[in-house]
Formats: sequence, structure tokens, C-alpha cells
Amino acid sequence: MKKMMNAPENFVDEMLEGILAAHPDMLTTAGGDLRCIITEKGKRPGRVAITTGGGSGHLPVFLGYVGDGMIDGCSVGNVFASPSANQMLSITKAIDNGAGVLYIYGNYGGDIMNFDMAAEMADMDDIEVQQVIVADDVLSAPKGSEDKRRGIAGMFFAYKIAGAAANEIRSLDEVKAVTERALAGVRTVGVGLSPCIIPEKGKPGFTIGDDEMEIGMGIHGEPGIRREKMKSADEIVEEIMDKLLPDVPYESGDEVAVLVNGLGGTPLEELYIIYRKVNMVLKEKGIRVHRPYIGEFATSMEMAGMSITLMKLDDELKALLDAPAETPFFVQK
Amino acid sequence: MKKMMNAPENFVDEMLEGILAAHPDMLTTAGGDLRCIITEKGKRPGRVAITTGGGSGHLPVFLGYVGDGMIDGCSVGNVFASPSANQMLSITKAIDNGAGVLYIYGNYGGDIMNFDMAAEMADMDDIEVQQVIVADDVLSAPKGSEDKRRGIAGMFFAYKIAGAAANEIRSLDEVKAVTERALAGVRTVGVGLSPCIIPEKGKPGFTIGDDEMEIGMGIHGEPGIRREKMKSADEIVEEIMDKLLPDVPYESGDEVAVLVNGLGGTPLEELYIIYRKVNMVLKEKGIRVHRPYIGEFATSMEMAGMSITLMKLDDELKALLDAPAETPFFVQK
Repeated sequence: MKKMMNAPENFVDEMLEGILAAHPDMLTTAGGDLRCIITEKGKRPGRVAITTGGGSGHLPVFLGYVGDGMIDGCSVGNVFASPSANQMLSITKAIDNGAGVLYIYGNYGGDIMNFDMAAEMADMDDIEVQQVIVADDVLSAPKGSEDKRRGIAGMFFAYKIAGAAANEIRSLDEVKAVTERALAGVRTVGVGLSPCIIPEKGKPGFTIGDDEMEIGMGIHGEPGIRREKMKSADEIVEEIMDKLLPDVPYESGDEVAVLVNGLGGTPLEELYIIYRKVNMVLKEKGIRVHRPYIGEFATSMEMAGMSITLMKLDDELKALLDAPAETPFFVQK
Repeated sequence: MKKMMNAPENFVDEMLEGILAAHPDMLTTAGGDLRCIITEKGKRPGRVAITTGGGSGHLPVFLGYVGDGMIDGCSVGNVFASPSANQMLSITKAIDNGAGVLYIYGNYGGDIMNFDMAAEMADMDDIEVQQVIVADDVLSAPKGSEDKRRGIAGMFFAYKIAGAAANEIRSLDEVKAVTERALAGVRTVGVGLSPCIIPEKGKPGFTIGDDEMEIGMGIHGEPGIRREKMKSADEIVEEIMDKLLPDVPYESGDEVAVLVNGLGGTPLEELYIIYRKVNMVLKEKGIRVHRPYIGEFATSMEMAGMSITLMKLDDELKALLDAPAETPFFVQK
């Protein structure tokens, strides 16, 4: 196992110690618990607070978006494992500005169970909580079963829209509503080219041939819909766009945000070759790219591969997307 | 070869098409030549212009730093190959604001030859050119032979300092002088864990055992000083810091900027585990981190590994480092 780490059981805590040491002006902990990361900026009276949470191994997701203009807290689990309801509650209390707390997280059983429990406990403390579940992975469940889809890179857009809406001092119901409206137009499809190794396991979660790729693979290595021989970048993009576009659907004249997301082991050069074709396909269909994001936004440690996310836009969503943000892992002027 | 690309011979041009399609508000070409990338912001009268250049495969280096507050142009070569003197000249003419042009590039034979030739041609066109060569790779040549050292991730700091100084409308001589003064305190050591594949070659440039790493490896896979068994993250950092610190040297009370740079295939989690220990070692020695940068800044496509760069700071360098910048690959508020 070729990882730059110390004892595998310390992987997550030492990563967190590194992040806190690097960004003390932006991040701190709730109650001294390393696994409960919150913004250092303190209370912002009247602003809806937003928290997320999930397993480790996906940087910048999840905690990398704690900061100005996005989210306020993140509970951190072990690699690919849900954090606990107690962590979530502790963060909820720490970040609440009196305007309620929005939970935004991916559609995974463990996370849902724990966030539900945290919300119940918060209610007993008279903190109003609402929840938004991200389920953008088109190929993880067919149309009509959207509620069974996993949450992957689309999370980024949920944080961005919700954070910008909260900064406008909208109410909890309003922040939730606009985030859900945004997510109704968010779709992702990924392709995995290599496995990754969970530090404490020490070996890859699956194997894949040297000339194979898997369309629809999840960010924990969940199986996709099809394993096939490596194709050209343009063919991969065409296949993915054929899944993404009809699922919303789009018309000529529509505007989108595009996220070409590296899964951890894929170089930026390849992501731009991918974006080139995404842009061409959209142009052919008369769909205008309002803002592209290209880089690593939601990874699976050293996994090679990428995902493409589209978010359909309107004027309100464009304004929220364009609002400035600054977190340790994402800066937009 | 598991790369998301089309025909290998189109790798660089398609990457550039993708980058230009994604960032039309920031980047354009000189004279329509894809391989001559310049800022879209147009002329800035009286400001020293800065250009760089080098082989492809290192994103964000080199062209990723063309933008506000850093550099104005970049000539783009094939993967790991120097661009031509004519490209450099064409960019020099396009970006010159009448205050002279500074060339900043890495210490590689082909680049030196071509930039020298471009500078001579620019002189015939009455454009004043000065050059700064980056040679920060400590282990590529011993102390006393600093002029034989290769340029690697330290390039980032050279662009940042020079760009900020140019924005203050300092003269060409002054921008050159402060960049060289900064570079006198910039040192890098890298460790390579895996090879990368040049698209047109189709196979790895070297092999390395599953349990091996190479200290001092260059960003084109140039041999380091020693190949050894994988060590723990903390041991790797200690070994690297033992090379970096005495080479300047440092005293208790000094301040530094730190760059923990992923080479392309290494996850962010590991880079933060590395930074944790870098910070500990510096703290023990009484050296204060003024600003850390952690992520991918100078890569070698999908190579696994990382480099650590330190830049010794004083008040002037801190102010220049802290100045805002915005490029397609780097934003600092």
C-alpha cells in the first residue's frame, strides 16, 4: 500500500490535524472534537446555519467547503463511514445563529439515520432543523426512483447555492426551498478507472482491468451500470452526456453550470480534454455554459476517473452561484 | 495506457482548447496560436509584463498562473518538451506594456536556449527583456552548484512575487531583483512514488517497486538521490526537512511560506498528513508559517508523490505574497 501516512488508524485524525494547522483562520472544532469541524468566523446573527457530514476520503468534500459563503460545519467520519449523530448535534448547537440549521448531505443510509437522529435531538433543544438530501448520481437508480440515487459531486452545488442564500439572510424554509430547487436540476455521472485503498484495509476495494473503465461507479467504488473497454475521451463524454441531458431535460437556450470533477488520481490535463468535449456537446444543443468548474471537488482518494455534473440554471440560481465564497479548498471572487 | 484522451498526438492541443473554452474571460492566444497563451485582460500601461513557458504535463504549471496578479503569458510545449523561441517572442510582443518583459522559467537546457534566443530577437524589436531562472530542486545538485539545480514547484512563488511586484508598477530591474531575492530563499525537495506516462510514448518513463519511493525525483521522472523502501509520512517529512532547512539556512524566529505540492496522483488527504508534520518540524525550530499552500501546483501528470517547498520571508516578501491574485487555477483573496 503506497500511501504517505503514518499508522492507518490515525489517517483521519492526522489529516484533520493538518487541515486545522493549515487553516486556523478559517476552521476550528466544536468543543475541541477534531471530528466536528466548524467555521472559525463565529456566530452570524440571523443567518441560517448549514452543516454537512460524511465519511472521509473525499476531499474537498465534505469539510473543505466550511467557510465564507458556503457551509458552517461538518461532522467527519472514518474513511467511507458515517459520522455519529452526537457529532452532528454538537455542530448543530455550535453553529446555530438562532435562525435554524439546514442539514445537507448525501443519500446514504448511515448518514440519513444519524442526521435524522441529530435533528430529533436538536428539536429537543429547540433548534429548528431542516434537511436536504443530495441524490445526483443518475446511474445509481433509474428515472422514477430518484430518491434511491446516491449523492456525489453535486453536493458542491448544494453547498454553494444554500450558502449564498443563507448569506442573503433568507429564512430556513427559503434556503431549503431554493437548494432543493437547484438540486432538481443537478445530475452527475462518473466513470471509474482504478480502485482506491482504504488505509485500514490496506488493499483495493475492487479490481478493474488495465484497459477497462466502469461507467456509473460511485465514489466509494459502488458498481456502475457497465464495465467496458477504455474509450476515447470524446466517446466517454458522449456516453455520459447522453445519460445526463435527458434526465432533466434541457432545451436549446438553457444555461448550465458544469463541474468536471477529478476523482483523485486523474491529472488536470485529462479533465480539460474532457471539458473541451462537454462544451462542444452543450454548444451543439444550444445550451450555454454560464460557469465551469474543473478540478477536484469530490474525490475517492487516489481513484482515477472523473465525474461530470450539470446544474440547470435560472437567473436566481445564477446569482447565487456567482456570489463570492472562500473556504480552505475553494475560493471564488 | 489508461488516460482519458483522444489521439495521443492531440493531447496538448485538446487540453489547451479545453482550457480556453473554460476560461475565455481570463485567457486568450497571441496571434491565434493555441500554444501561445496570454492574459485576456489586455495591455496594462507601464506594468512590467511577465511570461513563462515550458513543457506540458505539469498543470497548473505553467500556463495556469496566467492571470491577474501573477504572469501575463506562457508558451506551451509538448509534454515534457520545451516550446520554441518563436512562441516566446510572439508572446513577448503581445504582452509588452512598454515597461519591458521578464522571463521566468525553470533551469532546463532547452528552455534556456529558447528563451535566450527569444530575448535576443525581442532586443532587435526594442523590447527590453530580463530573465530569472528558477532552480529550487535541492537534491538535483549539491550546495555550491546551485546553478545546476532544476526548477520545480518553487516556480509558483516566483510567479507570485514577480506578479505582485509588477502590479506595484516597479521597474523591470526592480521586479527582477525582488524575484531573485525571493528565489534565494526558495528550496524544494520531492519524493516520487509512481511513474507517469507520456501520451505519445504510451508506457511509463521508469519503473519503481510497489513498496519503493525515490527521494529527490524530478517532475519529469529524473532520478533522485536515493531509492528506498516506503517510509511513514512523518519519516518522509523529516528526511526532506533535513535537506531543505540547512540549505538556506534558517534561524529561530524566521518566517516561511510552505507549499506542499501533490504531483498529480496523490490525494489531498495525504498532503495534509504531510503538512501536519511539516508544521510540527518548523514549530520545533521556532520557524513560523506565514502562509501554507497545499494542493496541486506543479505536477507530473498522474505521478504519485509530492514535494515540499519552503520560501523564507521578510516583510516585503510577505506583502507581495499576500497580494490578491486570480488565475484559472489559483485564486487568493
